[in-house]
Amino acid sequence: MSSQGEQNLVAGNKAYADSFTQGHLALPPSQHYLVLTCMDARIDPASAFGIPLGAAHVIRNAGGNARDALRSLVISQQLLGTKEIVLVKHTGCGMLTFKNEDAQAAVKQNKGYQAFIEVEHLDFQPFPDLEQAVKDDVAWIKGKKIEEGINVSGWVYEVETGKTRRVV
Amino acid sequence: MSSQGEQNLVAGNKAYADSFTQGHLALPPSQHYLVLTCMDARIDPASAFGIPLGAAHVIRNAGGNARDALRSLVISQQLLGTKEIVLVKHTGCGMLTFKNEDAQAAVKQNKGYQAFIEVEHLDFQPFPDLEQAVKDDVAWIKGKKIEEGINVSGWVYEVETGKTRRVV
Repeated sequence: MSSQGEQNLVAGNKAYADSFTQGHLALPPSQHYLVLTCMDARIDPASAFGIPLGAAHVIRNAGGNARDALRSLVISQQLLGTKEIVLVKHTGCGMLTFKNEDAQAAVKQNKGYQAFIEVEHLDFQPFPDLEQAVKDDVAWIKGKKIEEGINVSGWVYEVETGKTRRVV
Repeated sequence: MSSQGEQNLVAGNKAYADSFTQGHLALPPSQHYLVLTCMDARIDPASAFGIPLGAAHVIRNAGGNARDALRSLVISQQLLGTKEIVLVKHTGCGMLTFKNEDAQAAVKQNKGYQAFIEVEHLDFQPFPDLEQAVKDDVAWIKGKKIEEGINVSGWVYEVETGKTRRVV
């Protein structure tokens, strides 16, 4: 049904708030880093990547895409003091399964022309090779003057095993 | 130190993978919804919003901003079948604390002109009023043809109490 998310939130949050003891945490991430990863439903960054509550910003979008995260990266680093990026893409990513033209065609067919023109400017940023995509995003970050002095590492999370391995 | 995030990942992921049993989960979110929330370090969406592993996409950026998430929203909905958006902003958000000019000035002062010109085109999308920002983002989503047929609700998470309340 269409309100499953609301129901999960209400029930899950009641249990969470009833035992909540972390109301004292500060706004700036206490361990001065950020994790950039995919929105994929099979990834739970706090558990899978060992992030204590309050320690790190977590940015998530389709593909764990660096370009799409630029606004958030700059805010995290320049206004809230993070100094490290842990970039994690993953096996079985949806971004490996389509091309820009496919997404545009799906929108036009399913939602009509008025919807299509709302998104025709978008680069959906799919990628054909997972490890290369990690390397490309890390290189893109390192090529930015705004990212000078930021420590960047790139990883792959395996949705089949729960394991993470370093790429760069 | 600058590699705290890497260390957390390696140690945390070893423990996670050692007891991992969810390698069978499918790519499309099993409960057909997505959560859009802030990158804030004090938010653990899976726990605080009751999201089972594999059930929902989780998109996170500075402020839980809808416009900045458009690429991910379209991919989630048009290619991976989600039909509901749970939008959650939060008390104590960094986006309440600055203006675009402040962010641009911080970049120019701290990183220099070459860095500044990389980001001067960005709208950092801060907001002065939390509940109004939730309403504005929900209204923006509902005004898009591409979002027709998607169920949208808007919430505020209280970082002081762990509680979430519905706004719209």
